[in-house]
Amino acid sequence: MLSAVETALDAISNTTHLSDSERIDRLRLIRSDNIGPRTFRSLLHHCGDARAALERLPDLARRGGAARPGRICSEDDARAELTASKRIGVSLLAPGEAGYPPRLAVLDDAPPLLGVRGALETLMRPVIAIVGSRNASGAGLKFAGTLARDLGDAGFVIASGLARGIDQAAHRASIESGTVAVLAGGHDRIYPPEHEDLLATIVGNGGAAISEMPIGHVPRARDFPRRNRLISGAALGVVVVEAALRSGSLITARIAAEQGREVFAVPGSPLDPRAAGTNDLIKQGATLTTEASDVIDAVEPIMGRPIELREPDDDPLAHEPDASDRARIVGLLGPTPILLDDLIRMAGASPAIARTVLLELELAGRLERHGGGLVSLI
Amino acid sequence: MLSAVETALDAISNTTHLSDSERIDRLRLIRSDNIGPRTFRSLLHHCGDARAALERLPDLARRGGAARPGRICSEDDARAELTASKRIGVSLLAPGEAGYPPRLAVLDDAPPLLGVRGALETLMRPVIAIVGSRNASGAGLKFAGTLARDLGDAGFVIASGLARGIDQAAHRASIESGTVAVLAGGHDRIYPPEHEDLLATIVGNGGAAISEMPIGHVPRARDFPRRNRLISGAALGVVVVEAALRSGSLITARIAAEQGREVFAVPGSPLDPRAAGTNDLIKQGATLTTEASDVIDAVEPIMGRPIELREPDDDPLAHEPDASDRARIVGLLGPTPILLDDLIRMAGASPAIARTVLLELELAGRLERHGGGLVSLI
Repeated sequence: MLSAVETALDAISNTTHLSDSERIDRLRLIRSDNIGPRTFRSLLHHCGDARAALERLPDLARRGGAARPGRICSEDDARAELTASKRIGVSLLAPGEAGYPPRLAVLDDAPPLLGVRGALETLMRPVIAIVGSRNASGAGLKFAGTLARDLGDAGFVIASGLARGIDQAAHRASIESGTVAVLAGGHDRIYPPEHEDLLATIVGNGGAAISEMPIGHVPRARDFPRRNRLISGAALGVVVVEAALRSGSLITARIAAEQGREVFAVPGSPLDPRAAGTNDLIKQGATLTTEASDVIDAVEPIMGRPIELREPDDDPLAHEPDASDRARIVGLLGPTPILLDDLIRMAGASPAIARTVLLELELAGRLERHGGGLVSLI
Repeated sequence: MLSAVETALDAISNTTHLSDSERIDRLRLIRSDNIGPRTFRSLLHHCGDARAALERLPDLARRGGAARPGRICSEDDARAELTASKRIGVSLLAPGEAGYPPRLAVLDDAPPLLGVRGALETLMRPVIAIVGSRNASGAGLKFAGTLARDLGDAGFVIASGLARGIDQAAHRASIESGTVAVLAGGHDRIYPPEHEDLLATIVGNGGAAISEMPIGHVPRARDFPRRNRLISGAALGVVVVEAALRSGSLITARIAAEQGREVFAVPGSPLDPRAAGTNDLIKQGATLTTEASDVIDAVEPIMGRPIELREPDDDPLAHEPDASDRARIVGLLGPTPILLDDLIRMAGASPAIARTVLLELELAGRLERHGGGLVSLI
């Protein structure tokens, strides 16, 4: 079953190998102020390489109205992070390099450098994510384990978030077959700390851990939703085992759907609050899942399709905005998020000009990007 | 919300009122050997009234190859059944008469005379059926009660089968708002016997009971699946609360889908065998149901549509088959059920001729009709 996939993945793996200096430059760029994955990608696309982008940063930020230039990560700091990462077995990989999960690599907001620890070949195999409540029921934990084991036996790698409850059960049941822990903090800042042993077992048995955060980064509350996009992004689909209404697992499911991933949900009694979220997902179109074949049947047709690295539609810096473009667009922005598409339409600007203005604002630390194409002024 | 419905139902209620002698003749016809609801309908359509059909019966059965003529119910027996029914408050109503559930009346296999006891006006209101396991869980019973109460509050009548478990919980919770017990035996042969009190409470509080079986008929195992078509047929939709795989409630759900009724199913844990059937129904397209609004939202658009009594497409006796038609069709039939449509195609006969031959065979006691348009020789 998995041979077609491996072929498809070959098409995008091993297509890239960074030189040492390019890796350092990219690390400097992504660790500099006001640069997220999307901005990184736009800059790299326009400037050709990270070094050129680093040189243009101060000028772009100034045009965006930065009161003072943002901090640019120094070469020494970048080298220090690379060395510290290597010391604990973490490689910093770019999309397209062997070991960078291929499906994650093609996202618009793929981490420009992903910290990867463990068996790189496991990260190249097809992944199913299993997520759910931290305070799961006994039945939920048992089901998560059975599902992870059955999917592992069928050749899938199980991804989850190393949390208590469902995550832990899914990881434990797939240690033999291969599992990936997706971290919200740096590789040396495991949350929850009592799962350091579980992570060691995962990595010691052919599994892996991934994080986009630097060594030493202690995960904050806001890092978890951001991390969740990596769990679903690396996977063909996400199974939500138990989830209350308004829980983190539902955020993962929403992101998964936005990423075009399959969403699976395990049903439960209407009287069980831990099933309210999953039942709701099924009402919204998620695939009701009671056994591994429900997942396998849905993802098999997808697995054969080639995974293509998309280039940005246009070059945000190809057209230079003038002062009136900037004033018009900034005037339309406020603290309330609005859709990028609406902004472009209302500004009467070309998409390329509008995107360049937004990039400048972002580099100046004045723009916030939300999910779903929403932007606001800070 | 229910005003549009009441208007739609007016279109088909009170359209019929049988004379005493026509009621007696129809009762004689449906109580005669080898005559089911479909055969009854064909005969009535062709012969114009039940009296004419009774006169033609011996000739048709002889042509179908009956070794000896089937028993024809005598006028005395029919009068005795009518009198006995009346004595316990049961009216025998024809489709289109006030008190005959309008949605049931338009089925191809609607009972030609339905024994109705209790509040006739309740039977004219929109109905939702709630069914499920006899050995239900506490959670299932509680949910059935909550759902029945909420649907009752929203103006729906609850239909169920008076069984232990889910049926009982659904009836009890809707006694105030109106509930209908659909019986597998005669009105004086309640199953299970310990639910006679429940039935008395139902009927005493503005509810009703219906049965197509004569007074005195003790329900046999095979009467329950047959009865189930009345539960779903009278309703806009059927909610299955708890059901194991291969359970009677799933038969009701299948019949409901064939009848074009909405099918609702209540999810449960994959580890709970009492949810295996309902989860499976959802996988097959039933609406996942956790609260009354799931049901109401789905049936509201249907409620406004007019209910039309359909006449049979053609007249089965309009074209007289000859001996070669009969031989060809009988030759294609055997003990293994085949689709009526396939039979007609293979026989190269006109549908009208084929149906006439089948009607003759049926009256001769040689044909069995199964669900889904399947027929076989006995």
